[in-house]
Amino acid sequence: MSDVQHPEYQACIDACNACAAACDNCSTACLQEDDVKMMARCIALDMDCAAICRMAAAYMARGSDFAVQLCRLCATVCSACADECGKHRMDHCQACAQACRRCAEACIAMDSAA
Amino acid sequence: MSDVQHPEYQACIDACNACAAACDNCSTACLQEDDVKMMARCIALDMDCAAICRMAAAYMARGSDFAVQLCRLCATVCSACADECGKHRMDHCQACAQACRRCAEACIAMDSAA
Amino acid sequence: MSDVQHPEYQACIDACNACAAACDNCSTACLQEDDVKMMARCIALDMDCAAICRMAAAYMARGSDFAVQLCRLCATVCSACADECGKHRMDHCQACAQACRRCAEACIAMDSAA
Amino acid sequence: MSDVQHPEYQACIDACNACAAACDNCSTACLQEDDVKMMARCIALDMDCAAICRMAAAYMARGSDFAVQLCRLCATVCSACADECGKHRMDHCQACAQACRRCAEACIAMDSAA
Repeated sequence: MSDVQHPEYQACIDACNACAAACDNCSTACLQEDDVKMMARCIALDMDCAAICRMAAAYMARGSDFAVQLCRLCATVCSACADECGKHRMDHCQACAQACRRCAEACIAMDSAA
Repeated sequence: MSDVQHPEYQACIDACNACAAACDNCSTACLQEDDVKMMARCIALDMDCAAICRMAAAYMARGSDFAVQLCRLCATVCSACADECGKHRMDHCQACAQACRRCAEACIAMDSAA
Repeated sequence: MSDVQHPEYQACIDACNACAAACDNCSTACLQEDDVKMMARCIALDMDCAAICRMAAAYMARGSDFAVQLCRLCATVCSACADECGKHRMDHCQACAQACRRCAEACIAMDSAA
Repeated sequence: MSDVQHPEYQACIDACNACAAACDNCSTACLQEDDVKMMARCIALDMDCAAICRMAAAYMARGSDFAVQLCRLCATVCSACADECGKHRMDHCQACAQACRRCAEACIAMDSAA
């Protein structure tokens, strides 16, 4: 029997980790594109999003009193990143947009359940 | 077709994320034990380990030039945390020790493959 | 002449860095107290607070679109940590409480100025 | 009288925080340059460097057993970032290169003193 503090957080932790990796992958791939300038906002949002997703995962894993509030802001950042990445047709951007949307949904679900 | 930068890093990224969550869960559970003092070194190592695992995941996901070097240090921290957690019979410590050992192995494999 | 993106953020970045270090110092010192159990909530809040302060510093230094929103949540976490640390008479807790209060004020000032 | 755990770490913590902010400022400024493509490696190293500097500051502030080993790797990353930023004449790159060199020196000094 597991004694994980908050098993109900696991799906959101997984979504946050997947989103962070997708954002990191996307920013690196964006920096290798021919037209990097066009990807500037995407790269900046990828950085914001990867950072807050990893911190949200940490807050949830520790069962922090502020996990839900952080997830709320994480959903906002993920949505902004999804909107920007969604504008670009490259696989790394499309994969990132999808991971961001899933993470935003998981974070919003955390908030609704709280 | 995916355009993930380094698909060969994925297993180690997953091990790092699992280890970070296990460490965070363990530190919170340790703080709820009756004898917290006995768990002090465990908590401190959990903090170190969770932090470096998440940073290693980020370096790998971005395909950083320093991913392998960071994984080498991550393996050292994970091993120290596994040794300490392994001394305590609680489920959260045993689960953490196991996640730390798996992560150390995955990080060492990264280094060997580099 | 400097080309720092947001010179008006510098005071808050400094307060965040000082608070993060005070929280980290406090958690380590708490783990060395005779009665660690009494310090459990302090340690947990120190972890939350150090993490969000460093991320707020990063968001500000990058001029993130979400810097102000993150500072707002950072102020909430800092205030909670200040309240808890303020209950304990040890130097490390008192110093941490003071750093947390200063950081909360700096973060709130960011929000007011936005 | 302060009860900071490791007052001898303070100069290096300060150098790490200054370097992290300089790297973050540089990456954002690089993304606003006309020729972003030329700055791609600079941006990637800025990200690596900011992240490890903040984690090194955290390890030092907590008096981690691994603070010195992390500082050693931090010095390597800082030196690589300084070399790349030093190639570009923009103020943000020159300021970042200088902060990276100072941080590398402070991290190496930590290692020598250990």
